[in-house]
Amino acid sequence: MQVLRHMNKGEGETSYAKNSLLQKKVMSFGTSMVEAAIYSILRELKPESIGVADLGCSSGPNCLATVSQIIHMVADASRQMGQIVPELRVSLNDLPGNDFNNLFKSLPNFYETVKNEYGIQGCYVCGLPGSFYGRLFPAQSLHFIRSSSSLHWLSQDCVPLGLGPEIESHLNKEKVYISKGSSSRVVEAYQQQFRMDFSLFLSSRANEMVVKRRMVLSLLSRRSPDPCADEACYHWELLSRALMSLSLDGLVEKEMIDSFNFPYYAPSPEEMKFEVEKEGSFVVDGVETFEIEWDNGDSDDLNESSGNRVAKTIRAVVEPMLDSHFHLGPEMMDELFRRYSNIIDEYCLKKIFSFTLLVISFMKKG
Amino acid sequence: MQVLRHMNKGEGETSYAKNSLLQKKVMSFGTSMVEAAIYSILRELKPESIGVADLGCSSGPNCLATVSQIIHMVADASRQMGQIVPELRVSLNDLPGNDFNNLFKSLPNFYETVKNEYGIQGCYVCGLPGSFYGRLFPAQSLHFIRSSSSLHWLSQDCVPLGLGPEIESHLNKEKVYISKGSSSRVVEAYQQQFRMDFSLFLSSRANEMVVKRRMVLSLLSRRSPDPCADEACYHWELLSRALMSLSLDGLVEKEMIDSFNFPYYAPSPEEMKFEVEKEGSFVVDGVETFEIEWDNGDSDDLNESSGNRVAKTIRAVVEPMLDSHFHLGPEMMDELFRRYSNIIDEYCLKKIFSFTLLVISFMKKG
Repeated sequence: MQVLRHMNKGEGETSYAKNSLLQKKVMSFGTSMVEAAIYSILRELKPESIGVADLGCSSGPNCLATVSQIIHMVADASRQMGQIVPELRVSLNDLPGNDFNNLFKSLPNFYETVKNEYGIQGCYVCGLPGSFYGRLFPAQSLHFIRSSSSLHWLSQDCVPLGLGPEIESHLNKEKVYISKGSSSRVVEAYQQQFRMDFSLFLSSRANEMVVKRRMVLSLLSRRSPDPCADEACYHWELLSRALMSLSLDGLVEKEMIDSFNFPYYAPSPEEMKFEVEKEGSFVVDGVETFEIEWDNGDSDDLNESSGNRVAKTIRAVVEPMLDSHFHLGPEMMDELFRRYSNIIDEYCLKKIFSFTLLVISFMKKG
Repeated sequence: MQVLRHMNKGEGETSYAKNSLLQKKVMSFGTSMVEAAIYSILRELKPESIGVADLGCSSGPNCLATVSQIIHMVADASRQMGQIVPELRVSLNDLPGNDFNNLFKSLPNFYETVKNEYGIQGCYVCGLPGSFYGRLFPAQSLHFIRSSSSLHWLSQDCVPLGLGPEIESHLNKEKVYISKGSSSRVVEAYQQQFRMDFSLFLSSRANEMVVKRRMVLSLLSRRSPDPCADEACYHWELLSRALMSLSLDGLVEKEMIDSFNFPYYAPSPEEMKFEVEKEGSFVVDGVETFEIEWDNGDSDDLNESSGNRVAKTIRAVVEPMLDSHFHLGPEMMDELFRRYSNIIDEYCLKKIFSFTLLVISFMKKG
């Protein structure tokens, strides 16, 4: 089963471009690690040209913000060190289904800013579509890699390994992700997929990066070693309930829910470090975790419920995936997220939920 | 005045993707020059990695065909010479408004072909949006540049230099391009714009290319030294007439026609060579010209008129430009091209028209 993997396109009410404030917040964490990586490049190499990549750039306003931040740092740091600002080769990566057209439309203004505000002439931005679970870039072409809010997505466009479309797909009944009730086979299938994916990610990046240079990844994580802990899967649990309530009303077939599993995994810092050591190309040289409330409180509408805000953020990311599996149509999709929003409000009365964000810095071994 | 500069998007009946057979034919000319350039890179440099760019790639099936041809040649030539196939860094360039989404969708299949048919592992394709009348690529990063059916478009999104939106815009009355009746000021303004643009194109590419490496450009040209010759502007002349017939029926304001001029110029080979010498970074090392009939005869519908085929080809390229100036709406646009098609049929009864294609190869001085 193919699951469509991109954010909601365009600039409408439910678009990712309009509903990505949480991702913007996420981006702002990890700045000190990014800065350290940039300074080390400039200090140690005094390069004429540097290669920078943003993996899983998506297409909203955040995308060029990540890159802007990096470029700004390069310009500032170069001047502080009395060095000439190097030529910047910037690659924006996401899956081929990403809305690159939307992203490219804002490039002319972006170049104006880079030139006028940062005084940089030599900046060359390209879009490079493809899965980061595999080779993307020419050998040793990158000095710095950044990825924000992307690596918690698994590679598989189908359900994770071992949860095939036949009998086994019914293992994770009434759920769309690992949940408290999931069998150990479900949990293991997810974990195994994460390990394979992340290991392939690391070996691919190792070929593309210059030695001793760094990559900083931000992704959803969990404090608990237990992947079934509420903090790791409760937002999916509630979405499962919203889907099941549609099913109880005869609006969605239960089998469709049984056979759907989000290609997502929020690893613990320990799980990540273990894979890094096993793969062997990188050392972890910085780890930070942050708690981010589901509801960041940002809204144009003061009367908007917390549940609605959270539901909108999640919808912008997962609607294309849901749509390609369930084929709900726009009205039923609205209904699903109305129910999801209500369910979230109901549960948030009892406690406030938060995501754990992991920011982790890696250095390629020399 | 901003004129929208991209081909008709998507895959519908009037899309560029469905109406670019002429451009495909154009692409096939110049193969021997492309081959010579590729061989010289491999023979003289034995490179581990080569940078290749397609400027004005557009988004139809032709786009990846250009690049496929180059990659195929690199693979074949490397094997013939007993060399390892180098890593290929491929940049697809067009304006930011180009339909890169459509292009990127076909990349996964493209990579399959490159891997399975040509046996190439290291091929990295990126999209690089921006005007080629200015810097696009990092310094000395390219070994080969190809551009097909693009360089006859001028840089200006407004009417050419000297034909401003005020009084002067009315200089080229009832016409959308140079015509027999145009004043010498109109012709000079077009020529001056071409010279400025092409000179900037050359100096930009000179910075981006490795010394002694080549670029092969194919563009519409003319045999006659006179830019007002029929062969250079008759397709625009007939389009002017179609627009004027709408105006006579009160469907388009005449002032709108007076103030519109296609940002297009078909230079003679001599004009191009003159600019190359003046700019000084390149030597011309190959020139070929080909005559291509307006109507290439390709059609699914055997009863389709010649005029209709020609009109469809031209529509796919110019509709966004016309639309952004005239705001005709879909029905009036259909009517315009119906009339254009009839006018072409009427004139083609008397003689068959052809475009002159110029293919020219340049070497960067060492």
